[in-house]
Amino acid sequence: MVIHGLTPDECREVLGRSRHGKLACARDGQPYVVPISFYLDPEENCAYSFSAVGQKIEWMRGNPKVCLEVDEIVDQFHWTTVVAFGRYEEIPDSRQHTDARRRAHELLQRHAEWWLPGIGRLNATEGHPTSVIYRIHIDRMTGRRADRPRPGS
Amino acid sequence: MVIHGLTPDECREVLGRSRHGKLACARDGQPYVVPISFYLDPEENCAYSFSAVGQKIEWMRGNPKVCLEVDEIVDQFHWTTVVAFGRYEEIPDSRQHTDARRRAHELLQRHAEWWLPGIGRLNATEGHPTSVIYRIHIDRMTGRRADRPRPGS
Repeated sequence: MVIHGLTPDECREVLGRSRHGKLACARDGQPYVVPISFYLDPEENCAYSFSAVGQKIEWMRGNPKVCLEVDEIVDQFHWTTVVAFGRYEEIPDSRQHTDARRRAHELLQRHAEWWLPGIGRLNATEGHPTSVIYRIHIDRMTGRRADRPRPGS
Repeated sequence: MVIHGLTPDECREVLGRSRHGKLACARDGQPYVVPISFYLDPEENCAYSFSAVGQKIEWMRGNPKVCLEVDEIVDQFHWTTVVAFGRYEEIPDSRQHTDARRRAHELLQRHAEWWLPGIGRLNATEGHPTSVIYRIHIDRMTGRRADRPRPGS
């Protein structure tokens, strides 16, 4: 098995076709990681998502530094992982966020799947102010990919 | 879809049959999350794993607070997620850690799969001191499970 690093463009490509990942936030040195559904806007280099207000949102409001991980596992010899470091930004339902909110709705309605915890809870509280739309501004990414060596190499 | 919380015993059961999860650590308020392979020792309430020395290990040496997430996704209506908060402990190759290291070897050799990044790198550096065995002491767990409502409910 050969493991090699991914370029930023390759990382962006993997993140761009991913719909589910793990989002980590931290408070007082304690990390917290949960599954999320998201959609990458490659023009803005942002991942859009939504969630019920709970521990994750409260922690990210207090400390916007986050980490988003996605992976693609084919088998033990062929896998890819990408880790993105970024900053949380809430997109409230206010006039100055109209464009961002419209963009988020477009992306999420087109791509949302309905099995993740946050989405399930959002469904249950539709229209209720305890759910939020947010985006992760991606500052940098790293990635690794495993392949089998080519014959003769 | 009905989402309900899991009891600590149910969380432990899910974690006990999981072999892969996402481990988050944090430094200076910045979380970092990566996939790991692990094995839970239910008697000690510890998750054992191993890794090449890299960013994850360096960060956990500096701040042992970690978070381990596992999930089981059947489909959009049937899924389970468990999040465990705990503390990192390295198990060095020294006389006072002989028992812990033997236990770790037993568990990991029995259950290890060979596709994860840390393992791939450990393979590549076998016998080299830049790889470590460690365990996560689990302090508390939370979990949620989604099911479809039963007919008539």
